[in-house]
Amino acid sequence: MPALAYIRGRLYPIEKAYKIHVEDRGYQYADAVYESIRYEKGKIIRIYDHLERLKRSLNMLQISFEFNFEEMKLLLEKIAVKTGYDRVLLYLQISRGVARREHPFPPICIPELVITARKFKPIPAKTRKKGVKCITHPDERWDRVDIKTVNLLANVLARERARKKGVRDSILFREDLEVTEASSANLFMVKDGAIYTPPLNGILEGVTRKEVKEIALNLKINFYEEYIYLQDIFLADEVFLSGTSIDILPVVEIDGFKIGSGKPGKVFWKVYEELIKSRN
Amino acid sequence: MPALAYIRGRLYPIEKAYKIHVEDRGYQYADAVYESIRYEKGKIIRIYDHLERLKRSLNMLQISFEFNFEEMKLLLEKIAVKTGYDRVLLYLQISRGVARREHPFPPICIPELVITARKFKPIPAKTRKKGVKCITHPDERWDRVDIKTVNLLANVLARERARKKGVRDSILFREDLEVTEASSANLFMVKDGAIYTPPLNGILEGVTRKEVKEIALNLKINFYEEYIYLQDIFLADEVFLSGTSIDILPVVEIDGFKIGSGKPGKVFWKVYEELIKSRN
Repeated sequence: MPALAYIRGRLYPIEKAYKIHVEDRGYQYADAVYESIRYEKGKIIRIYDHLERLKRSLNMLQISFEFNFEEMKLLLEKIAVKTGYDRVLLYLQISRGVARREHPFPPICIPELVITARKFKPIPAKTRKKGVKCITHPDERWDRVDIKTVNLLANVLARERARKKGVRDSILFREDLEVTEASSANLFMVKDGAIYTPPLNGILEGVTRKEVKEIALNLKINFYEEYIYLQDIFLADEVFLSGTSIDILPVVEIDGFKIGSGKPGKVFWKVYEELIKSRN
Repeated sequence: MPALAYIRGRLYPIEKAYKIHVEDRGYQYADAVYESIRYEKGKIIRIYDHLERLKRSLNMLQISFEFNFEEMKLLLEKIAVKTGYDRVLLYLQISRGVARREHPFPPICIPELVITARKFKPIPAKTRKKGVKCITHPDERWDRVDIKTVNLLANVLARERARKKGVRDSILFREDLEVTEASSANLFMVKDGAIYTPPLNGILEGVTRKEVKEIALNLKINFYEEYIYLQDIFLADEVFLSGTSIDILPVVEIDGFKIGSGKPGKVFWKVYEELIKSRN
């Protein structure tokens, strides 16, 4: 079986997964949270980080979906194995549930868990060696991007803009030119050997961001969580992105301007090497 | 048949409408537009305004769903009639379609039209006579609220906050205290006999807002589209909301403070009377 969807306790081939209710609040209000999770070589990468974040997201939206970490881990692994692929991208979404369309939380509503599993295609080695290009784009997202919800239309439009310009992603900045994230990745810059990344204030706490921080501490690389502004990234020695499906990815050009030498930098490679090691 | 759902050319009782794909971009990315439309006494209220706005929303998101206004009108009427109710609330949503989950617009994607029809419950006369209470709430929505999309989680949270406080709705304000809208309604205030409402810049152009404007012009009531700040609404003689499912609704208390006399005002009643007349 190739791609799969798990809905209300049953597995379907993805092409048959027309099983969501038209009045699911995830569909009508973006009233749902999610996680993208990777399964590789028989195990799920940083599963507890994902499940803890999922729990936080549910709490913040007051979606009462209780789950046991071990049971959820087993379920995800089971679905991943069923695909038959070595590397699987699992997508887990929990919406508030189905109810007559009205804005406030419905008095009775059963949260809806869905999981999809698809073959995971890693970033090709040559792409990483070359680095990627980005554009800058106003951060048009809502104020609660610290919660991992499907209220993602601003992210979609920013990413589509990048695609149209023939580059990898958009680096988002606020009105005061403060840089936040890319459309679905955290952002880092390197200056004089130290790593800088925006603080957890109005950004999403990425699982890979956490790994990068741990690695920097282990390697004794100075790591600063500080506000970064547009002008800073253009003067950086290195810029890179992090995310579950990209690991870390060097950005060598932004808005047509070379970053540092225009090639992936030393600090990037050091962190990347450790990241891959930690996965084995 | 009571509530109905129209999906891919077929009608279902709403409780059987588990027909949306798990990878519909409306479900995973809030990548969809919608309209709420009222059917009453054999016809749809301001159908062309709704369909024109729908077309604009689709264009702004580059969702290539072509439709003929007359055919869509007939379809909506047919579905409304099938419910057997005199007053029907039609909800129409068009998502970009189903595709493997990736942020940018998919190269091939067939937009998905769904329509639901439910009995419409108007605001009770005594509620309107008494007026409603509201709270104020920061406007946490994304930047493109001028497009009628399902990227509505901020609206949901603001409305839920109001419900928890035991009031009707939240009046949203920006960081500079500029007032925008309520969670799903346009906002008006009356001062010295003139009506004021925020200009079409960072708000949604409501169909009922347009009707209020026409009525004010007909009644020779001065009508100003001007930025309104929090302090202005507390000093207003009257405040009211407009929306498809509420028509216009007087706000008599905000954050516990009386507005004007604490009762629905003269200008409100004048406009309301005309609005109801125009529907006959």
